[in-house]
Amino acid sequence: MPQGVPTTVPDDGLTTRQRRNRALVVVHTGEMKGKSTAAFGMALRAWNQGWPIGVFQFVKSAKWKVGEEEALKALGETGKGGTVVWNKMGEGWSWTRKHGDDEDHAANAREGWEQIKRDLAAETYKFLVLDEFTYPMKWGWIDPHEVAQVLRDRPGSQHVVITGRDAHPALLEVADLVMETTKVKHPMDAGQKGQRGIEW
Amino acid sequence: MPQGVPTTVPDDGLTTRQRRNRALVVVHTGEMKGKSTAAFGMALRAWNQGWPIGVFQFVKSAKWKVGEEEALKALGETGKGGTVVWNKMGEGWSWTRKHGDDEDHAANAREGWEQIKRDLAAETYKFLVLDEFTYPMKWGWIDPHEVAQVLRDRPGSQHVVITGRDAHPALLEVADLVMETTKVKHPMDAGQKGQRGIEW
Repeated sequence: MPQGVPTTVPDDGLTTRQRRNRALVVVHTGEMKGKSTAAFGMALRAWNQGWPIGVFQFVKSAKWKVGEEEALKALGETGKGGTVVWNKMGEGWSWTRKHGDDEDHAANAREGWEQIKRDLAAETYKFLVLDEFTYPMKWGWIDPHEVAQVLRDRPGSQHVVITGRDAHPALLEVADLVMETTKVKHPMDAGQKGQRGIEW
Repeated sequence: MPQGVPTTVPDDGLTTRQRRNRALVVVHTGEMKGKSTAAFGMALRAWNQGWPIGVFQFVKSAKWKVGEEEALKALGETGKGGTVVWNKMGEGWSWTRKHGDDEDHAANAREGWEQIKRDLAAETYKFLVLDEFTYPMKWGWIDPHEVAQVLRDRPGSQHVVITGRDAHPALLEVADLVMETTKVKHPMDAGQKGQRGIEW
C-alpha cells in the first residue's frame, strides 16, 4: 500500500482535514522494551511541532528510562520546540517488587490516574505518554473501562500514547493505532546482559 | 524471563563484563514506520551516555524524519550529552520515485556506504543509525555480504542500528538483536491520512 494513502474512506461526515487532524490514542504493546523506546521516539516529532508534552511514568525502575528522561527534559529546556513535563507516578515503585506494599503502589497509581484525568480535562498537554500504564490496569488498581471512557471523551486535540504489555481489550478497543514489537533475535539469548546506553 | 538476566551463559572465554560491553548490531525491521522511531528512541540513551552519534539516512522523503532530525540535532547542540552528526546520503532521493534515475541513486547510496566504512574504520562515532539502509542492499546497489563482513570486523566499541524492511539474511546473521514491529490496528485502515507530529 502506498504510504499516507488510506485504504478506505469512511462515511463519517468528517472532512479529510478534520479526519487527518483527529487526535490519536496509540498503544505500544508486545513483549519487548522497544515499546517505550518507540513512544519516546514519537515524542521527538511532537517536540518538533512545538507541542506541550506530558510524560506520566508508571515506574518500573528508576534506572531504566533515565536516558530518555534526560534527553527529553534537555529538549524541553532548549526552548526551540515543545515543553516537556516528566511525571513519575509513585516515584520509585517497581513492578518487580515483591508483595507486601501493594496498597501503597495501588494508591500511587490511582493518584497518577487522577492527575492524568485532570490534565486531560484541562488540556494541559497536546502529546501525552502514559508509560507502562497497562500494568496498574492489569493488576486491578485502575479500571480499564473508565480509562477507555475518559480517553474516548477527552476534549480538544490531545494525542495519547500508552505503553506496556498485556493491554486490556477495552484499551485496545478505544485505540486508533496499536503497535506490537516482537523480538526475532536478542543478545540475552546468547548470554549477554543488559548494558548502559543500550538497555537504559 | 526476569529482565536483564541471560537465559544461558556461553562458553566463549569472555568475562561477564567483556560480554556486557560488547558493542551491538541491531536491526529494526518489519512493516511499520515504528522501526525508525525506535532507532531514534535508542539514540536518546546513547546521547545521555555522552556518545558521539552518527546518523546516516538513506532518504525516503525529505519530510518524514524532520521531527527526529531537528530534535536530535538540538540535543547535540545542548552540549550536555553526546554530539550528533546527521548525514543524508544522496540528499533528497526517494524510494518512491519512478525509474529513470536509478543510476544516480545507486551511486549516491554506494558513496554513503563508503563514508560509513571510513567512519567505522576511524571509530568516528560510538552509536550509528543507518536509517533505511536495507533498501540499497535489497536493490542490489550495495553488497549485503560486504556489509555483514565490515560490521563483523569493525574495530573498538561501535553500536550500529539499521532500519528498513526486508533485511537481507546476511545482515540478520550478523545482528545481535533483531526487532520487528507489526501493526495490530492502524488509523489508515479507518480512512485517516497521516498527520504532522505523528507520522513525521
